[in-house]
Amino acid sequence: MLCHMHSQGGPLTQLRRGHEQLVLGLLRRYGRLSRGELGRHAGLSRTTLYDIVAGLLANGAVVASAKDPGPRRRGRPVELLTLDPAAGQAVGIDFARRAVHVAVVNVAHEVIGSASEAHPAGLPWEQRVDLAERLVGGLAGGALRLTPVGEVGGIGVGVVGPVGRTDAGDTPQHVEGTGDTEGAGDARDADKLAALLSERFGAPVLLDNNTRLAALAESTWGAAAGCQDVLYLRLSHGVGGGLVVGGSLHRGMDGLSGEFGHITVDPAGAPCQCGGVGCLETVASVGAVLGAYRAAGGAADDVPALIAALDSGDARAHRLLAEVGEQVGGVLAAVCNAVGPGVIVLGGELAEAGAALTGPVERALDAHVMPVSRRRLTIRRAALGEAGGALGGIALVLRESPLLAGYPAGRPNQEEGT
Amino acid sequence: MLCHMHSQGGPLTQLRRGHEQLVLGLLRRYGRLSRGELGRHAGLSRTTLYDIVAGLLANGAVVASAKDPGPRRRGRPVELLTLDPAAGQAVGIDFARRAVHVAVVNVAHEVIGSASEAHPAGLPWEQRVDLAERLVGGLAGGALRLTPVGEVGGIGVGVVGPVGRTDAGDTPQHVEGTGDTEGAGDARDADKLAALLSERFGAPVLLDNNTRLAALAESTWGAAAGCQDVLYLRLSHGVGGGLVVGGSLHRGMDGLSGEFGHITVDPAGAPCQCGGVGCLETVASVGAVLGAYRAAGGAADDVPALIAALDSGDARAHRLLAEVGEQVGGVLAAVCNAVGPGVIVLGGELAEAGAALTGPVERALDAHVMPVSRRRLTIRRAALGEAGGALGGIALVLRESPLLAGYPAGRPNQEEGT
Repeated sequence: MLCHMHSQGGPLTQLRRGHEQLVLGLLRRYGRLSRGELGRHAGLSRTTLYDIVAGLLANGAVVASAKDPGPRRRGRPVELLTLDPAAGQAVGIDFARRAVHVAVVNVAHEVIGSASEAHPAGLPWEQRVDLAERLVGGLAGGALRLTPVGEVGGIGVGVVGPVGRTDAGDTPQHVEGTGDTEGAGDARDADKLAALLSERFGAPVLLDNNTRLAALAESTWGAAAGCQDVLYLRLSHGVGGGLVVGGSLHRGMDGLSGEFGHITVDPAGAPCQCGGVGCLETVASVGAVLGAYRAAGGAADDVPALIAALDSGDARAHRLLAEVGEQVGGVLAAVCNAVGPGVIVLGGELAEAGAALTGPVERALDAHVMPVSRRRLTIRRAALGEAGGALGGIALVLRESPLLAGYPAGRPNQEEGT
Repeated sequence: MLCHMHSQGGPLTQLRRGHEQLVLGLLRRYGRLSRGELGRHAGLSRTTLYDIVAGLLANGAVVASAKDPGPRRRGRPVELLTLDPAAGQAVGIDFARRAVHVAVVNVAHEVIGSASEAHPAGLPWEQRVDLAERLVGGLAGGALRLTPVGEVGGIGVGVVGPVGRTDAGDTPQHVEGTGDTEGAGDARDADKLAALLSERFGAPVLLDNNTRLAALAESTWGAAAGCQDVLYLRLSHGVGGGLVVGGSLHRGMDGLSGEFGHITVDPAGAPCQCGGVGCLETVASVGAVLGAYRAAGGAADDVPALIAALDSGDARAHRLLAEVGEQVGGVLAAVCNAVGPGVIVLGGELAEAGAALTGPVERALDAHVMPVSRRRLTIRRAALGEAGGALGGIALVLRESPLLAGYPAGRPNQEEGT
């Protein structure tokens, strides 16, 4: 009575293949792992794991990469394993409002390159996809291989606006736009975009909000690499962010999470494009900050000019950034008390202001984060710049691969940020 | 070369046992499921699933329970499956500051009963465990069966103070107390408590913060049953809460999440026991609210007296609750914009104030939650009362069972709150 068996090559082969898939999936998610880390993640015995790894090394699917320098280890260095870097590549594309950013990473988690090109706002999707295809082609040198390790690869794509996920809980999916938010026009086009990209690249497409993807990228390759609980805040023309919770991107119901820019900081403040009043975005976006600087008698048309003023010791600029930093820090503190991240990553153009902004932010965190949590919390500048959204798309493809659909997001053997 | 096989009864039996374990684990997590829901969660083919279920029904591990009334379905009603209710029970114990609460639930998710007994603050652990054992014995009628369905059962235990989890990511574990928070003294004793309970009941112990457990209970059996993204706020002698994210309890780094009571509402406010200033707890705890009422000339020694004043139309009481509700709503709105829950559950003694509190809370949510999110968000009164912590311990045991360690928290086929 074994009608539930649909084996290919017999049950023993099937069992072994299951173990191989698990090992390949873990390397795909985490990049480099030692045999010890692999064993802990996979829950396989040492004997089984070494046997499976030996087979994968022999057939070339897995390679022994650079050794861990391991300053704290004695004896010979630990050998690290990755997927064969030549086995395939993953592509990330970030369709920002006025630019397309792309990145290509191989399945060993090595960044092959990234590229960007600005375009006018409102450029039709066909032309934005053309642009993306050309940029990706340039990076891959005509040798793009989107089918890594025996499974269909994917393209991770960032878009403006909320993106939810299906009931199945595995595949991010677009939520129909509602018209309330600036990005909704883009979001409504997401299904069409996914179909267009899928046809053009011949691969499935995973879509998510581009700012949230930047959060995932920073926790994979950037300022919070290896941290499992990360709060990412982006101070740009809009103010938004994302939460990485237990190593996975947090989406919230219908994808409406990470809207830190729409937390109220002044109930008597300015109206916000979201329909609210006095949101953080109304005081901490690039436009709001430059506007306030000019209203105070300063002269700066863009963020670099404002930073130049800060560097020259302009008191107005410092006073303004201190106020903005206090507001930003207050919002971050509230979210930290609620969610308990280990690392805050600050990104976006305004984060370039450096200590003039982060100093006041740190002081606000000191004042408003529970003391017991504050000392476990660090704040870092984003490391990936404008490539963050595209790299986050790749992180989504590599980390939330269907290969690992039945496998929980584990905790890599790395320390939380201190 | 199959040295990685450690089979018991051969690989085919092993594979089938794996499928059976998956089905049993899903029923343990979700309680009642139809065959269709089981198939979607398990990812098994219809043929395989029906075969496995038939076997489990034949040997009695699974029973067909009440049929789904299914108002929207045509044809014959869908048969729902549960684990055999007689197969075992799970016990939850909440060691609150001045009382022990216990609950017993069978593996079909039916609540058998709950009981509570108050005790003086600071009662030694041995005596609190004696009390728990006696209360559990009374509920189970001397027939407690803590070893459900072929696996070691567990006791889910709530304690005051932060509780984290191990690197493995599966087993909640106590984090050493830090001395900053009121509950830290209790938390330091958690390891000792777990050992004591494990010895007394002969079962492993899963520990977590009792307020967070109440959040999980409300999303399992209570006001937010079936919702995957829930924010629970408890307004009691302390102010705290918990987040259920994608169906699982969110812990944050080192278990320091859900500290909504320590979000600043007034930077110039009163000092808080956490070391901060002007935290929500300083204005919205039972003590703070009663103190403010008395300072305004009112007379109420406890929450029922305050509620009586509200019921009698006392303007001072209504004015005070309006202010408190506005502060509570402001904090909830900030967390909602960050995390994106579908349901807010309000618990604790002060939630009994009803519309005098929830009205202002709703108005603050209207003002401060992003409009696009606000209309997807509902607020409900907690349904489980003081049994919440103990029931949450059971939910932890049933939902985060080691049986499902390799299985992601899926999304049951239920609608989010509307």
